[in-house]
Amino acid sequence: MEPEISHQKQIASLIGPDLRRLLKEVGDPELARELIEDFHPEDIADLLQELESADAAEILKALPDDLAAPIFERLEQPTQSIIINILGPEEAAEIASEMAPDDRADLIEGLPDEVGEKLLDALERVDPEAAREIENLGRFEPGTAGALMTPDFLSVFASRTVAETIAMIRKKGGQAETVYYVFVVSENNRLEGVVSLRDLLLAESGVGIFDVMTTRVISVQPETDQEEVARQMSKYDLLAMPVVDKYQTLIGVITADDIMDVLTEEGTEDAQKLGGMEALEASYFATSFGTFIRKRATWLVVLFIGEFFTGTALRGYDQVLTAVGSLAFYLPLLISAGGNSGSQSSTLIIRGMAVGDVKLSDWHRIAVRELGIGLALGLILAAVSIGRVFMWGENLRFAIVVAISVVGIVVMGCVVGSMFPILLRRLGLDPATSSAPFIASLVDVLGIIIYMQLAKVLLAGVITEAIKVKAAAGH
Amino acid sequence: MEPEISHQKQIASLIGPDLRRLLKEVGDPELARELIEDFHPEDIADLLQELESADAAEILKALPDDLAAPIFERLEQPTQSIIINILGPEEAAEIASEMAPDDRADLIEGLPDEVGEKLLDALERVDPEAAREIENLGRFEPGTAGALMTPDFLSVFASRTVAETIAMIRKKGGQAETVYYVFVVSENNRLEGVVSLRDLLLAESGVGIFDVMTTRVISVQPETDQEEVARQMSKYDLLAMPVVDKYQTLIGVITADDIMDVLTEEGTEDAQKLGGMEALEASYFATSFGTFIRKRATWLVVLFIGEFFTGTALRGYDQVLTAVGSLAFYLPLLISAGGNSGSQSSTLIIRGMAVGDVKLSDWHRIAVRELGIGLALGLILAAVSIGRVFMWGENLRFAIVVAISVVGIVVMGCVVGSMFPILLRRLGLDPATSSAPFIASLVDVLGIIIYMQLAKVLLAGVITEAIKVKAAAGH
Repeated sequence: MEPEISHQKQIASLIGPDLRRLLKEVGDPELARELIEDFHPEDIADLLQELESADAAEILKALPDDLAAPIFERLEQPTQSIIINILGPEEAAEIASEMAPDDRADLIEGLPDEVGEKLLDALERVDPEAAREIENLGRFEPGTAGALMTPDFLSVFASRTVAETIAMIRKKGGQAETVYYVFVVSENNRLEGVVSLRDLLLAESGVGIFDVMTTRVISVQPETDQEEVARQMSKYDLLAMPVVDKYQTLIGVITADDIMDVLTEEGTEDAQKLGGMEALEASYFATSFGTFIRKRATWLVVLFIGEFFTGTALRGYDQVLTAVGSLAFYLPLLISAGGNSGSQSSTLIIRGMAVGDVKLSDWHRIAVRELGIGLALGLILAAVSIGRVFMWGENLRFAIVVAISVVGIVVMGCVVGSMFPILLRRLGLDPATSSAPFIASLVDVLGIIIYMQLAKVLLAGVITEAIKVKAAAGH
Repeated sequence: MEPEISHQKQIASLIGPDLRRLLKEVGDPELARELIEDFHPEDIADLLQELESADAAEILKALPDDLAAPIFERLEQPTQSIIINILGPEEAAEIASEMAPDDRADLIEGLPDEVGEKLLDALERVDPEAAREIENLGRFEPGTAGALMTPDFLSVFASRTVAETIAMIRKKGGQAETVYYVFVVSENNRLEGVVSLRDLLLAESGVGIFDVMTTRVISVQPETDQEEVARQMSKYDLLAMPVVDKYQTLIGVITADDIMDVLTEEGTEDAQKLGGMEALEASYFATSFGTFIRKRATWLVVLFIGEFFTGTALRGYDQVLTAVGSLAFYLPLLISAGGNSGSQSSTLIIRGMAVGDVKLSDWHRIAVRELGIGLALGLILAAVSIGRVFMWGENLRFAIVVAISVVGIVVMGCVVGSMFPILLRRLGLDPATSSAPFIASLVDVLGIIIYMQLAKVLLAGVITEAIKVKAAAGH
């Protein structure tokens, strides 16, 4: 289905040329600023992304820092890096100091080391607290809860009243990433419960927090994978997820808007891995030629070398192939049937594990199921293939070889395709990354062996005859 | 990485046997109720999912309807259907009347027609308004904004004050799906703006809504695809998205928790489509054997028939293949290189279009890019293949055939893989569904033609010689 183009985006693309003209002809960035203040930062970021980097930098420079920050943090990483180089670290640090702490940490993390360090140095002079926060957040691996969380959350003691808490939100809510949940902590900052702003508003103002909070609070550790955080938040319909250390001390909060981005990102990464390549870190056009080659060539070469074994297998059946030449015509057809059924099974299992539907302990049930499904699918394809074989004028014996091969290959594809990802997960590897290549080669090689071995046995008479004729011709 | 098991889930799996025992031995559902009231409905749903349906129905029956509803709406569809049959329509309608309107509409939509109609009839007696809401929501196609939205939102006139609005939230907020955004409407219910609860709390209580609301409000139409809604909400970091009809009348609101589910679901559907099958509607284990066969067999048969053309292509080069027998050994290797590079390109473009990075109008830039990438990747694989060819003792001419074929096939794979999804989208088809099968067959057939044609031309001498020898032997 054709995606609708948002109203804002249309306007942004209309403004683009005007803004550029204003900048170039009138030379008045102040006018440009008035022009764009009415739009969502996301749309202005889209717009700047399309401009020359020097023009984009000029516009950002002209804007007050608190207006520039939400735009800047929405630019793609390569653009950010170029603009920081144009602005210089001092100017960039002024903007960075107005960014949300988690986005600021992501910015530094994503920059080339040299650029990142200069910016961090400048930030230490401009806003020492922001620099310290980056170091705190930087301790956590990208892709974990620790790297996603923000330290700007609201907390309260259980002994406070509803009215006191609402007053606190009014006072401190401006800086917090979310005001819709207030976390209840003990004197030493241990997480004890949570109360939503909705519950606060619906409660009597004199009531104690202890009486309105829920202690049934779901939390994650900073090391938790972001995919798991997303799964939990989506499962329990949470708008914010507290992050606690091993002493149950509340150290940060992850908000739903970040999780929506994670879910999109993880979907894309999984698709790319299933498509047989390393996951990209940026969008298609923001990824450089060199990065593409690196991310795609690695797996292509691995797959290519894996496929060498198909040649080895075929060489082993040299006599069979030479004796019955038309066997080769069915080769791509048969091995693709194995590859396709294998890819269906592996996708189902990999995605099932990613969203939590399928667990390692289910392997036995899955094996039995895929065996049955493979058998049914194989029989359907075998029926189709028999028609084709007769259409091409082969004999009954040949048709039987092809039909049995199809069944065997599809069953094998389903079982290998479903079991291999589980095995990888069991070994602590990421099944999305590594399954596709190995399954593809394994299924192809096994498919060839099934087909050739069946031909060798069932067409033994024809093969012996052909070898005799050839030997006679050799004389 | 091993997913962590949530604390709650562990507890749920510990309680399971106890609950079953309590029910069977003590026969006291009241005791069971006390036992589970402390847990999140999601976890209780997980637990009921594991029990016998009769036991699960008994527990739901024992709970007050307002406690049973949030549990019931979280069960998988087949389980819901079985439990409704056990409870009977009257009892089920009592529970359904306490569900959120959007979840209730989904429930009826998902049930077998007969069961759904009986439930709807019962609901009309128990809660006529709920039945009417279902009819309203049921007008929209599943997978659109209209089917996702809830009519339970808060709205206010721009002439009201902040204090009046907060008082309204206190009064009506109990029923609303979200209280964190209040939508500002005109007398005839046209959407004019939005104000967040955060802004309300931070504003002075006497200020008018007109002065705190933002008119920069992003909205969707009921027909908008849910994937597009998710993209907009994720892009603009929205916790709620208003749905308006063509007169700008506010008719519903979509909340972030529903969108997190949509994002997960769309990721799974895209992965399944890329994996070469129809998307499932339920999880792996909730999908029946018959459904699996239907969803998987269709594309497998289409792909299988598509691959028939590989045989046709090979038959066209019968003489070449017979003359140089070892050509067949490289066949799976070469066509898989085309398939793999094609699958990389198509995944990149399909996902890029799904998340909005790649637009139809970009096709020209993409074609040029993929041509360059294909050439670079092809040359890398060609270098690897030359080593392999010599290892197997083939001559230089043969090595050249294989190397040029690899380059040609990989370039072709990249171009076909990237352009075909764009073409499908241009024709109004879903590229995720239809690309994989067609690209696979097309790339295989074209790959065979490239390889065989090159062999025919470059190995012409050898082939003529072999045909002569064969003819001589025939005498």
